[in-house]
Amino acid sequence: MRRKNGGTHESLEPAAGGGLIDRRFFLAGASGLAMADTAQAQSLVVEPWMKEPGSPFTPYGAPSHFEEKVTRVYANPPNAPGAGAARTPLHRLHGTITPNGLHFERSHSGVPDIDPDRHRLLIHGLVARPLIFDLDALSRYPMESRIAFIECGGNSGALNQKDPLQANVQTLHGLLSCAEWTGVRLSTLLEEAGVDTRAKWVLAEGGDAASMSRSVPLAKAMDDALIALYQNGERIRPSNGYPMRLLLPGYEGNMQVKWLRRLKLVEAPVMTKDETSKYTLLQPDGVSLQFVFPMEAKSVITHPSPELALREPGLHQISGLAWSGYGKIAKVEVSADGGKSWALAELQEPVLSKALTRFRLPWRWNGGPAILKSRAIDETGNVQPSRDALLARRGSRAIYHFNAITSWNVSEAGEVKHVYA
Amino acid sequence: MRRKNGGTHESLEPAAGGGLIDRRFFLAGASGLAMADTAQAQSLVVEPWMKEPGSPFTPYGAPSHFEEKVTRVYANPPNAPGAGAARTPLHRLHGTITPNGLHFERSHSGVPDIDPDRHRLLIHGLVARPLIFDLDALSRYPMESRIAFIECGGNSGALNQKDPLQANVQTLHGLLSCAEWTGVRLSTLLEEAGVDTRAKWVLAEGGDAASMSRSVPLAKAMDDALIALYQNGERIRPSNGYPMRLLLPGYEGNMQVKWLRRLKLVEAPVMTKDETSKYTLLQPDGVSLQFVFPMEAKSVITHPSPELALREPGLHQISGLAWSGYGKIAKVEVSADGGKSWALAELQEPVLSKALTRFRLPWRWNGGPAILKSRAIDETGNVQPSRDALLARRGSRAIYHFNAITSWNVSEAGEVKHVYA
Repeated sequence: MRRKNGGTHESLEPAAGGGLIDRRFFLAGASGLAMADTAQAQSLVVEPWMKEPGSPFTPYGAPSHFEEKVTRVYANPPNAPGAGAARTPLHRLHGTITPNGLHFERSHSGVPDIDPDRHRLLIHGLVARPLIFDLDALSRYPMESRIAFIECGGNSGALNQKDPLQANVQTLHGLLSCAEWTGVRLSTLLEEAGVDTRAKWVLAEGGDAASMSRSVPLAKAMDDALIALYQNGERIRPSNGYPMRLLLPGYEGNMQVKWLRRLKLVEAPVMTKDETSKYTLLQPDGVSLQFVFPMEAKSVITHPSPELALREPGLHQISGLAWSGYGKIAKVEVSADGGKSWALAELQEPVLSKALTRFRLPWRWNGGPAILKSRAIDETGNVQPSRDALLARRGSRAIYHFNAITSWNVSEAGEVKHVYA
Repeated sequence: MRRKNGGTHESLEPAAGGGLIDRRFFLAGASGLAMADTAQAQSLVVEPWMKEPGSPFTPYGAPSHFEEKVTRVYANPPNAPGAGAARTPLHRLHGTITPNGLHFERSHSGVPDIDPDRHRLLIHGLVARPLIFDLDALSRYPMESRIAFIECGGNSGALNQKDPLQANVQTLHGLLSCAEWTGVRLSTLLEEAGVDTRAKWVLAEGGDAASMSRSVPLAKAMDDALIALYQNGERIRPSNGYPMRLLLPGYEGNMQVKWLRRLKLVEAPVMTKDETSKYTLLQPDGVSLQFVFPMEAKSVITHPSPELALREPGLHQISGLAWSGYGKIAKVEVSADGGKSWALAELQEPVLSKALTRFRLPWRWNGGPAILKSRAIDETGNVQPSRDALLARRGSRAIYHFNAITSWNVSEAGEVKHVYA
C-alpha cells in the first residue's frame, strides 16, 4: 500500500527537540494524521478464509502460525542443556503483561518435571513450629494477587561492553517479564511457624537439580513476599517454578526462587554458591558488592528499536517500558536529540508498584538522523542514569544491575541501531 | 497428609451468619491457623527430579503436563465444527487475568486462518474520507492498553432452566474471560475518516465465513472502543480475532466483533441476522428487547464451587469474581446462610472499570450444611439481583444477560452443589 506522509499538522506544538510532541496530542483526538490510504471503489477483497468454515475449537489455544517467529531466544553453554537463559521478545509485544509462553527463563540445571502431589514446602530453622506443606494445605491459606515484573539481575549486562552490541531489545534487555501472580503471603506462613527473634534471614532453596539457593532478608519475607502458585490466572508454568515459586516484588530475579521446596530461618546469610560466585557486583577497587537486591529505576524504548525500522517520515508513537524495584514509576522522559532536550511521556494507567509501566509519546520524525533515549524516574526519586554516569560510578565489571539509559540511533533510512551516545 | 482442624481461634469476630469472618482477618496477620502439618525429623524427600538435569528451554512454553485437564470445554452443533462456544475453566484459575490459551471463544463459523499481510480494515459509509488500513498502517497509530473482561451475552443462560443444572462454574459461567488488550482507539480512526453528522451507528463486520455483524452505537465507538491488536502482550489469538478485533469494554461479547474487516457509519441499526435472530431478550409479554448492550453487575463464587469440595471443617477462604459493564465494582457481599445475612468481601486492588475483580473473604465452616451466595454492587449503584427477582421481572425466556445470584449448597461432606435458594 502507498502511504502518504503522516503529519500534515504544521502547527504541532513541540514538547522537546527533534520532533517530540506533547504527550496529550493523540489523546486530544487528533485528526488528519494521514497514515492510512483513502479507500477506493476496489474496497475489500473477499478472501478465501471468508468462503469456508474455519477451524474448530481446541482445548488449549496457541498463537497464529503467522506469529511463529515471536518466540523466546536462548543460548546454552555446551553440554548444559538447561543452564542459561531464554529471553522475552519485548520488541514484538505491546502492553505490559507477558504471555506465559513467552515469560523469560533463567535456569541453572534445566526445568524439573515436578509432580505437584509429591512436592512439599518445608519451613524450618529458627521457628517455634517447623511446618511442612503440600499443595492442598497451601491452597487452604488466603491468597492474594499482584502484577509484578521480574528482571534477572544480569539483564542488560551486554551494555557494559566497550562497543555497543548490535542486537535487538530481546537480546539486550529480554530477561524481563511481567505477570499477574497469585499465591499465599509468606508472612502468613511465617507467623504460623512462629519466627524466633534471632532470625534475620531466610534461606530459600529450589527443587531443581541445582538446588538454587539464596538468602533473603527476613524483613522482605515479612513484607510483600508471596509463595506464588498462579501466573496470569493458571498454575505457574514449569519454566517459572511449577508448582510454586518465591515472589519478591522488585528484587533481582535470581532471588525469586523457583520450584521452592525449603525456607530456613537463620541468623545470617548462608553464603550459598549462588550469592557468592554469582550475583555480586565487582567494583573498580576489586571489592564486590554483595546483596544488592532491588532492581533500579530503568526504561527502554521498544518501538522503534532494532529490527523495527521506521518506514517513512511523519508522525510516530514512541513506546516503551519502565520499571523500578523500589515502587511506582513517577515519570518517564524521552529525548529525540541524543539527550539535549527531554519531553514527558504519557504513562498507561494503572501505574502499579514494582510492575512494568508502558510509556508512550508522539514523535514527528523529519526523516533526518535522530538519537532516541528514555529515562525513568521512580516515586522514591531514583533517576535512571546515563551509561557514562553508571560506568564512572562502578566501572564496567559489575555486570549485574545495569540500569543505564539505552540509546537508539535512527538513520535517514529509518533503520534503528544500538549506540552509546 | 493428616490435617488438623483449621480455626483454633475461638474468638474470631463473625462478620455475618454461618461462619463468615471479617474480611481483614487474614490481612491482619493471622497465626495459629493450623492448616499445615508440623514438620517431623523425616523432613524433605530428595525427589528424582532433583537428581538429574531438567529439560532444556523451549521457544514458546506450555503448562505442566500435570495440568492437562485444565482446558476449555466446548460443544458444537452436529456438522458445524466451528459453531458454538468454548468455556474458560474459571474454577481452576486464580487472580483475574485469563491466560490466552484458555480465553473463552464463541464462533459462528469456525476460526478463520487470516493472513495478516492480506487483511484489511475498511471504514466507510457516512464519512468524509473512506479509509482502508493494513496492519502496518494501523500500527502507526497511537496505541493504548486496558484490562477488560469480555462476557458472552448468553453466559449463565442455563440458570433460566426450571431446575438447577448440576454443573461446574466453567459450564455455568465460563463464557467470561479477562485480558490486557492493546490497540488503537477507534475514535482516532473515525476522526481521521471524518464522521458525517447524520451517522449515529456503526456496522461492524467480521472476516469469518459467517460475516458476523453487529450495529454499534456511534457514542460507544467514540467513547472507549479499541481496535485491539494485542492480547496479554502478544498478538491476539486466532480464536479471539487475529489479527484484530473490536473491543467494546463492558458490552456483550457478541458485539466485540472478531476478525474485524469493515466498519460502516450509518444512520440507524442495520438489523443484521446476529442482532435479530439472536441476542434479543424475549419478555413474558412476547415482546423482545433488542440492543441491550452493557453486561450487568454480576459475581460468582469460584472457590469453593462444584468439583472443589471442602475437605474438612475449619477456616477457608471464599474467593470469586465480580464484574460490571457499567464501571467499577464498588462492593461484593457474601452470604453463608442462604442470604439471611451478608458480609463485605475484600476486593483485590487495583479495582479497574469493566474488568474482572477478585473478591475474597475468610469463612469458618462448622461442618454443617451451608448455602453460599455472592452479590455484586457496581459504582453506578446496580445491585446483582436474586434469581427470583430477575425471573419475576423478565420471565425465563430472555436467556441472555442473566446476571442473577448463583447459590452453592455445601453438604456436611463438604460437597458443593448448584441450587436455587
